[in-house]
Amino acid sequence: MEVWPKRVMDIWFTENQSTDMKLSLRIKDILLNKTTDFQDILVAETDQYGRIMVLDGAIQITETDEFCYHEMMAHIPICAHSAPRKILIIGGGDGGVLRECLKHPFVEEVILVDIDKEVVQASRDFFPHVSSGMDDQRATILNLDALAFIREHKNEFDVAIVDSTDPVDFAAGLFQSPFYGDVFDSLKADGIMIAQTESPFAEASLLKQAYQEMNKVFPIVSVCWGPMPTYPTGFWTYTVGSKSMRPNEPRNPEPMDCKYYTSRIHSNSFVLPPFLETLLELK
Amino acid sequence: MEVWPKRVMDIWFTENQSTDMKLSLRIKDILLNKTTDFQDILVAETDQYGRIMVLDGAIQITETDEFCYHEMMAHIPICAHSAPRKILIIGGGDGGVLRECLKHPFVEEVILVDIDKEVVQASRDFFPHVSSGMDDQRATILNLDALAFIREHKNEFDVAIVDSTDPVDFAAGLFQSPFYGDVFDSLKADGIMIAQTESPFAEASLLKQAYQEMNKVFPIVSVCWGPMPTYPTGFWTYTVGSKSMRPNEPRNPEPMDCKYYTSRIHSNSFVLPPFLETLLELK
Repeated sequence: MEVWPKRVMDIWFTENQSTDMKLSLRIKDILLNKTTDFQDILVAETDQYGRIMVLDGAIQITETDEFCYHEMMAHIPICAHSAPRKILIIGGGDGGVLRECLKHPFVEEVILVDIDKEVVQASRDFFPHVSSGMDDQRATILNLDALAFIREHKNEFDVAIVDSTDPVDFAAGLFQSPFYGDVFDSLKADGIMIAQTESPFAEASLLKQAYQEMNKVFPIVSVCWGPMPTYPTGFWTYTVGSKSMRPNEPRNPEPMDCKYYTSRIHSNSFVLPPFLETLLELK
Repeated sequence: MEVWPKRVMDIWFTENQSTDMKLSLRIKDILLNKTTDFQDILVAETDQYGRIMVLDGAIQITETDEFCYHEMMAHIPICAHSAPRKILIIGGGDGGVLRECLKHPFVEEVILVDIDKEVVQASRDFFPHVSSGMDDQRATILNLDALAFIREHKNEFDVAIVDSTDPVDFAAGLFQSPFYGDVFDSLKADGIMIAQTESPFAEASLLKQAYQEMNKVFPIVSVCWGPMPTYPTGFWTYTVGSKSMRPNEPRNPEPMDCKYYTSRIHSNSFVLPPFLETLLELK
């Protein structure tokens, strides 16, 4: 006698990582699905990566791998700087980079500027381990246009962290030299900035553009890289602009409780494979 | 007047990377689609990664990123060894690891044992840049059961490279100590082996198993890692077993024309992020 096979509830979230590539994750439950004044937000429970937050169709964080990205974005510039006290985070409304910045006892103030307060609230509601730094006395969260904000703040920050979405729509200017110039001006004389600059396997031209545009503004520009499983191709780059200090070696001790970052990983992440050196015309 | 939008030909290959995660690539053309005595083979043309070869539903190589995997598999054990002359490749019928081995002028002989001659032929037919070493005078390609082969070859090889598919069906034993013991016996007194050991983000238990099982056999076992965009999560590990030499630093000069591997990348790849040290119980 034939037995009808047991069927499973088959619900999938699919990210169109490019026109030609898709990543799909099985979903157990949808916790939030709304359109804010700025973007669509989805929070869902997956079997593969735990909870995920998606903005305009692109995965921003998952419980399982968010540490890879947030630790690099925070600790590379902070540990490269000799005495970072005041930090600016542009975007990053989920609070993951903020949480990492606050691990350093010498950091006195972190200002996070994300235009969308609903991203901040979604992280508070559904990602307590990511948003855990939001109520720290050293943290200030502002829901403003970050591009306008930095134009009004000159010579103020030691470190600026550009935790942006992909450069489309209102974020398009974030990979261009006028924006990097504004960030430069917002930094003190020995300031350092870092920006996420996409994958060389999926968006090589964007990485190259960011690198070239940042070189128009900062005297020292270096690219580093690390894994990030749920971002397209899993290979992610970060571009660092510095006014005076070479960022490739850490100056400060590594923070506690990291799962990806260490002082040795810091140095190693600036050692580029030849295909990346070729792309960036470094040799 | 409304205009009916132009529609595109929408053909996708989808890999079920796990029960809960899928990677899909848009296909321009299918070049080969057949069932051999051992497995299903698909060769297709994609927009994202160029030509791809798929075995039993799992992407094995793509034109765009195969170098990340093949360079690590070949150059880590060869450069770690003081004088590697005779190399054994188990699996790897596409020839990518073979091509890399032959970049070293001091390598005198490479024996590739892959049970499926149709994989070898598919690579010859559709991946000339991957199979380019197959006609080298130093190369021998045998279509045999590699497990039986190594049991008949004792104390013979300087380096053994286990370029296996995932450990299912006929490859299931490849992550277990009896197999590692056979590889050990096939190696000379200072021999080194390397095996691909999956992603800690997707198959953490398999990596841990391979590490523990190899430790039952080899006095020195080290894990290294690198990017591999089209394998699940893009973060890939390789486990090295060595009879006498610590593999973490290269002893031989880096080969020409590499896109990922360098001597510095060699050393750096053995520096593990804390989450991997925790998984492997190294601290």
